[in-house]
Amino acid sequence: MNKEEAFLNIISKTLSDSSFLGDDCAYLKEYNLAVSSDTLVEDVHFRLKPNVGAISPYALGKKALLVNISDILAAGAKPEYLTISLSGSLDAEFLEEFYKGVDETCKTFDLKVIGGDLTGGDKVSVSITIFGNTKNRMVSSRAGAKEGYIVLLVGEHGSSAVGLSVLNAANCNIFLGKEAFKGDFIQAHIEPKLYPKISETVATKAKNPYAMMDTSDGLYDALKKISKASNVGFNIDYDKVPKKCVALQDGTKIPDFNTVLFGGEDYGLLICVDKKDFDTFGAELLSLGAAEIGTVTKTPGGNKILIDNKEIGEDLRFEHFE
Amino acid sequence: MNKEEAFLNIISKTLSDSSFLGDDCAYLKEYNLAVSSDTLVEDVHFRLKPNVGAISPYALGKKALLVNISDILAAGAKPEYLTISLSGSLDAEFLEEFYKGVDETCKTFDLKVIGGDLTGGDKVSVSITIFGNTKNRMVSSRAGAKEGYIVLLVGEHGSSAVGLSVLNAANCNIFLGKEAFKGDFIQAHIEPKLYPKISETVATKAKNPYAMMDTSDGLYDALKKISKASNVGFNIDYDKVPKKCVALQDGTKIPDFNTVLFGGEDYGLLICVDKKDFDTFGAELLSLGAAEIGTVTKTPGGNKILIDNKEIGEDLRFEHFE
Repeated sequence: MNKEEAFLNIISKTLSDSSFLGDDCAYLKEYNLAVSSDTLVEDVHFRLKPNVGAISPYALGKKALLVNISDILAAGAKPEYLTISLSGSLDAEFLEEFYKGVDETCKTFDLKVIGGDLTGGDKVSVSITIFGNTKNRMVSSRAGAKEGYIVLLVGEHGSSAVGLSVLNAANCNIFLGKEAFKGDFIQAHIEPKLYPKISETVATKAKNPYAMMDTSDGLYDALKKISKASNVGFNIDYDKVPKKCVALQDGTKIPDFNTVLFGGEDYGLLICVDKKDFDTFGAELLSLGAAEIGTVTKTPGGNKILIDNKEIGEDLRFEHFE
Repeated sequence: MNKEEAFLNIISKTLSDSSFLGDDCAYLKEYNLAVSSDTLVEDVHFRLKPNVGAISPYALGKKALLVNISDILAAGAKPEYLTISLSGSLDAEFLEEFYKGVDETCKTFDLKVIGGDLTGGDKVSVSITIFGNTKNRMVSSRAGAKEGYIVLLVGEHGSSAVGLSVLNAANCNIFLGKEAFKGDFIQAHIEPKLYPKISETVATKAKNPYAMMDTSDGLYDALKKISKASNVGFNIDYDKVPKKCVALQDGTKIPDFNTVLFGGEDYGLLICVDKKDFDTFGAELLSLGAAEIGTVTKTPGGNKILIDNKEIGEDLRFEHFE
């Protein structure tokens, strides 16, 4: 159990009613709403100028929204409204650039900012709460996967982690002659691609319970969380995992196996659907960019996460809480 | 225009649709929901041990909820759900104590924690988004006051500011022989009293638009904000403003006039209601502790905030954003 899990356990035990906690989103059935909160903290999740690897206020505004929208899409809901609480040593220029990024992302996803809060402080912290409409949709649950379900995945996995390395190294020259890829990886890290149409297709067409999660903490982490919550295992074909690999001058391929599985912040969607549902709308998901990467399994005596038939442990797990 | 107002202007101008911003709560009519977000930051809104004037994690958990509940009550809604995003150098003991405070307050107000986020960081920051049900209620608006309306106020004004001074001075001896009052003032600061029954009465019984605000940034600030948004003035009788004053050994009375008007964090409710509505449920509000303190006015050539017929400026205004 890592530190974040230990802390979440404390919270669950301390609260008299923790029945709403567990998934990335809370689901308020009587309101047809999915709700999620996420915070990005300077020097934990991002760095500001003049540091190496710094993000601009504009890009931060975009990314802060994208990571929250991702949670709502993972729930199978339609993002509609959000509140933004911003604290730190803010100035007018930062605010204007940040909100330009926010506004552009709002337009892309037809979202509205309905409130928030501004406060002083040392480091910049962005806390967003986002609301998604679940009307006429079946919401996802980490506990929704069953043996025999088809596993789908969308999003280039490992790209964001490579992008972060590039940003941190700033002038790294491993990409000599391949500047275009450097830009792609950085872009994947700075402005993750999201998949609203895939989320909508699953949530509006599924007839059976399903599991859907974003891969914000890495692909392995998402597999592990669904494995635990649904009491199932996985059999995944690594070759089919969507990723964009580049061979460097010394022949090394990046992202490597570990980065694809454990690298964080890809914000792809991992989806486990019933075979009958897959027969109905699977082709549509594939045409939207999803890949069929394996099946949900059940192993007597302990569920295993098999990648190319080899059990993978969590010793390399990406941990963002330090 | 102060810094916070200037910043809010930038946000409103930068966003393509800022129609939801302006009140303490956003009102999502189609969902029957009022939503509010508030952030408390270490060393801006509270201090943690071992500092003078430090708040315990338990008290912080309570207060963080109370200040957010206050916004929902000011909107005339019934608080129901909330999300909590917590960042900082957290440990297990802090979390347990903090969530004990959260849980106790949840029980008092029949509230449920439905999600949140935990992240690392230097200073502790608590960001809460809270949801209130507005079904069968008329929601308040800062723009809802009209000439001739009756002005009501509940809450001991100035007490919280005195409590903060006492905490900051720690061993201050101005209260010699009056330790009980010292405790009352500290209590007012640490665990503000809220008025759910008064909020409910107004929101469920009003037939005409009304204005209601909490006095979290001080009584004068609330009068000023309603004055601006409703384009009205006020005529307030200072003697009738609810407050608990104590004479010290040297004869000074605290809180003094300025502290009562400009001291922050009292979380009382300032209410402006139509005279006919006052005739219907005014007596009920008075029996619940509200005081009738004056009337809403309209002055050709500029609306004035008169206290005992003297115009009061905002030169002493409490400003929390530095």
